[in-house]
Formats: sequence, C-alpha cells, structure tokens
Amino acid sequence: MTQEDSILDIVNKEIERLHFDASPQSLFEPISYILSLGGKRIRPVLTLLSCELLGGKYKDAIPMALAIEVFHNFTLLHDDLMDKSAIRRGKATVHKKWNDNTAVLSGDAMLIESYHLISKNKKKHLKELLHLFSKTATEICCGQQLDMEFESREDVTEEEYIEMIRLKTAVLLGCSLKSGAIIANASEKDANLLSDFGINLGLAFQLKDDLLDVYGDSKKFGKNIGGDIASNKKTFLLINALKAESTREELQSWIRKETFVRKEKIKAVTAIYNQLGLKELSESRIEEYYEKAISCLEQVNVSEKKKKELYEIASGLSYRKS
Amino acid sequence: MTQEDSILDIVNKEIERLHFDASPQSLFEPISYILSLGGKRIRPVLTLLSCELLGGKYKDAIPMALAIEVFHNFTLLHDDLMDKSAIRRGKATVHKKWNDNTAVLSGDAMLIESYHLISKNKKKHLKELLHLFSKTATEICCGQQLDMEFESREDVTEEEYIEMIRLKTAVLLGCSLKSGAIIANASEKDANLLSDFGINLGLAFQLKDDLLDVYGDSKKFGKNIGGDIASNKKTFLLINALKAESTREELQSWIRKETFVRKEKIKAVTAIYNQLGLKELSESRIEEYYEKAISCLEQVNVSEKKKKELYEIASGLSYRKS
Repeated sequence: MTQEDSILDIVNKEIERLHFDASPQSLFEPISYILSLGGKRIRPVLTLLSCELLGGKYKDAIPMALAIEVFHNFTLLHDDLMDKSAIRRGKATVHKKWNDNTAVLSGDAMLIESYHLISKNKKKHLKELLHLFSKTATEICCGQQLDMEFESREDVTEEEYIEMIRLKTAVLLGCSLKSGAIIANASEKDANLLSDFGINLGLAFQLKDDLLDVYGDSKKFGKNIGGDIASNKKTFLLINALKAESTREELQSWIRKETFVRKEKIKAVTAIYNQLGLKELSESRIEEYYEKAISCLEQVNVSEKKKKELYEIASGLSYRKS
Repeated sequence: MTQEDSILDIVNKEIERLHFDASPQSLFEPISYILSLGGKRIRPVLTLLSCELLGGKYKDAIPMALAIEVFHNFTLLHDDLMDKSAIRRGKATVHKKWNDNTAVLSGDAMLIESYHLISKNKKKHLKELLHLFSKTATEICCGQQLDMEFESREDVTEEEYIEMIRLKTAVLLGCSLKSGAIIANASEKDANLLSDFGINLGLAFQLKDDLLDVYGDSKKFGKNIGGDIASNKKTFLLINALKAESTREELQSWIRKETFVRKEKIKAVTAIYNQLGLKELSESRIEEYYEKAISCLEQVNVSEKKKKELYEIASGLSYRKS
C-alpha cells in the first residue's frame, strides 16, 4: 500500500462505512449529506501517508484520519452558515437544503463525532492526539473569526492575512500529518518536521485557491470564477492591490459600489490585478511556501524514496489547476 | 471537604480561573460572558461529590467537572440561538449581545474547550471518560432536535416527552456523576448506579422546571412565569392537558391563536391545568422519579452517612421553589 490512489480509495470506503442513521434522522441526515459531497480528502490521505512513511501501519491511523475529515466537513458546514453560502461542491449547503437550526445542531453533532472517532485511538497516543487536535481546532475557530472580521476592514495587512490563513487552513494540514506521525511512534523531531511541511503546504494551497478564484477555469475549479472579487474578500491579491497608489481610487470605487454588474466588476478588478503583476507576485509567494514545505520534508529522517507520494501531493496542491 | 457549599465555592473559583483572554478577543469574550452569568453549577458539584463519595480525591475530578460545566454552557449558548431566546439568567443572550455568527463560533470554541479540559485527565481514565462524554453529548443533541421538532406537533405523547427530557437534560446529570465515579476508580456497578441516580434526578428536575414555569414565583424562579404556556411548549402539563376531552376544544383554541393577550392566555391555560389536576399529577410523577433516584443512591456500596450531600441535593432539586 504505497500509492496515493489506493490510500484515497481506502479513505473513501471508510467514510462510506461511517453510519449516521441513528434517530432522530433529521439530526444525522445532514451529516451523511455533507460527507457524501466528496472533496479531495487530502487531510485523511495525509494522515495515513504520514503514518506509513514513519513506519506505522496505516490501519492504526484510520480513526484519526476520519476524525480529521469529519471535523473538516463540520467547519465547512458551520462556515457556510456563517458566510451565508448557498452552494458547496455544486450542491445546496446544509442550511439552504434544511435550515439554520439544523446546520447549527448537525454541525455540533459532527464536532462531537470527530472526538468520538479520536477516542478509538490506542491509550498510549490518546492524550497527545487529543491535545494536538483541540489546539488545532481552537486555532481554526480563531482563523474563521479573523476571516469574518476582515470583511468589514480595508486595512488588513499581508501579515495579518497570512496569519489568518495559517490558522483557518494550514494548521489542519499540519495536524493531519503530525497525528499520523504520532500514531507511528515517530520521533518528536520528525513529527514536527511533518507538521511544518503541512503548514507551509497549507499556506501555498490557500494562496493557490485565491489565485484560482480569479484565474482558474470555472469548469475545472468547480465554482464560479471571481466570487472573491464580487464579495470584496480580503485575499492576498486584493490586499496587495490596495497597497498600490496608482490604481487605489478605481479599486476602492469598485469595492464600495453597492450595486454593480458582477461581470463588469470582476473584469475591472482582474485588469487591475494584471496591471499590478499580482498573479506573478502570488505565484512567487506560492513557490516560496512550497519550497519551505519541501525543505521540511527533506529533513525527515526517512529515505527519500519513501517520500515520493508526499512530494507529489505537495507539488500537486501548489501547482494545481483546479 | 464534605459540604456542598464548599464544593460550590471550589467550582466557582475554578471556573473563574479558566482564562479565555486569547486573541481574537471577539471569539473568547462571549465564552467568559456566559460562564460569568452563574447558575447552580449543579453538574460540576455532582462530579466532585461523586468522586469523593467513592473514595477519590475531588481535585482529580476538577478538569472533568469543568469540562461538563463548559459543555453545559455551550449547549445553553447554541440552544438560545436556535430557540431565539433573548434573555438568559436575567441578561442578554450571546446572539443578542453580539450576533448569530458569534454565537455559532464561540459556541464551537466552547465545545472544543470542554474536550481540551477532558484531555487533562489521567491517561488511565481518558478513554472511558472520552467515550462517556461523547456518547452523552450526542444524546443531548438528539434531545434538542426532538425538542425543536415537538414545537410543530400537537400529538407528542408523554412517553416521547420523557425520552426527550431524558436526552436533553437527564443524561448529563448521569454523566456528571458517573465520571466522578470513574475518576475515583469505582466499581462499574457503583458508577452505573450513580449514573441512574443522576438520570432519574434529571427527569424529576426537568418536570419540576416545567411546573415552576407555571406555578413558580417569578422573583424566585428568575424568569417570567407562563413562558412555556405563551409559546405552546410541549411540556408534561400541556401534553397531559391535550389528552382530556372536556377541555380540549378550549385549549386548542388558545394554542392556535396567533394573537392574544399574554396574561389572558396564561390565566386561561393555567385554569385548565388546575381543573384537570395536572399540578398534582406532575408532582406525583416528580415524586416517582425522585424515589427511583434515591433507590439507586441507596444501593451504592458506601456508608449512608457519606451520601448525605447527595440526598440533600436530590431532595433540593426535586422539591425546590426556584
């Protein structure tokens, strides 16, 4: 068992095996629904690969991998509610398909389920895994809170933005990899190197996500292009664009417009990004985080040959087209 | 350390020592706020008393007692949001004082914090405590879901109602007592007897709560009398009243009125309850659950003298005036 594809098969089968058919069905049905929408399953795949890389058995890491994927989907469910998003992976979000209260309560039940899955780990690892997971989960709440606060601010700095995406997105990739290492009884050094690999990869991943939202192919990307521009989302691109004096007035007038033709706004703001060379700036920043990630992975005390899948995932996520 | 008062002091001091002053403050401030609103702290008190009763040291049970109290307050926070309640313990609820998104996210952070507190338990008890807590937490979500579903139903049976309050209220009292017993290394038999003591006590407690909402003294009870009647809440009283043919037509006309003078509705429905002898029926049911609880406590393999505080709490909760 060494190929990412077969790991993904294993993850998908295990997710299908999770049963949420207890009573009342109205509480559990939305959980099955959101988990059935798919996604890359990148986090549980990383947990299993990390465990195998460091000499553990991937089977031992399955409860933890599932806990992280259930938790990730819980954050999507509550974030969609808070952000009032109508669509997730091409389907109606839970609060749209059911209602707000269902989204709150089924989300809560998912968060509890993720801890229930953690409790299935061996006693010797339980305390460390629980501590890591709760620390990470709290950081993710902090990231979401910052993200929401940035909506009403025009003075968000690049540094604040990077810290926000570190918390909201990157630490969970770090946690996925580190927990696999803990289950494999890896050294603290290797576990932390894998964590840092995940965090840097997460930063590259999110910057790439912001970039694809403007420059991606809507068919491949799975969502409408320009959503971040339309909603004035404080992305790496917008924050850097706001720094440039030459285009600031035009940009701010688009940001402050309450009514606009969506296509026109996206076209105009994209033109500003092009003029300022922000696509290239963003790509060079992605490259930097990718290189940092690779450097961490290189230092893990395991033969390079065994790291093949992780290198491939890192490159795939940083340079993906969708 | 044997008196309930001093245990309550300890609990209150430990709750004050919980620090939620990390950044972003906007995420953590609502957590400090809801925990500062007070309350009976009955659950953590039960955990510490149960631990001491079975020969453990109360100090060992403090993280678990705090986890349960933080969790309980998390359920209040999310329930108030879902129920659109404006007032909790005489103060504005979190979603009113801040907003809905803050209530969702700060609540999530509280649920995570309760698990973080559980992770502080000794390794030997961690798996069992985690399993018990997650099972209980899921049951409480089920109870809240049923409670919400009952709002739009007029055919809720007494049996369904008892199952709902068992899940929503009683199992957490059972969990509070059982976890104290686990930490004290009690026998499974004693731990389960204390759990059953808590569940029966919880049923008596909730039935008493329903009763006080109609027949209590608003100054002592801390909330306006008749709230359940005004909102057609399917309580033990209303469910039983709907069974009686003689008053059904009048009762249903009040239930279905969209506009009414609050005082008039409360007066009329209370008169129906009086006519049907439902206060007495409810009191006899409370007595039954109280007796069942006492019978469980009597069977715990510890001298009766040591059980004094728990007997007093049981009688206090079942026969309280506020």
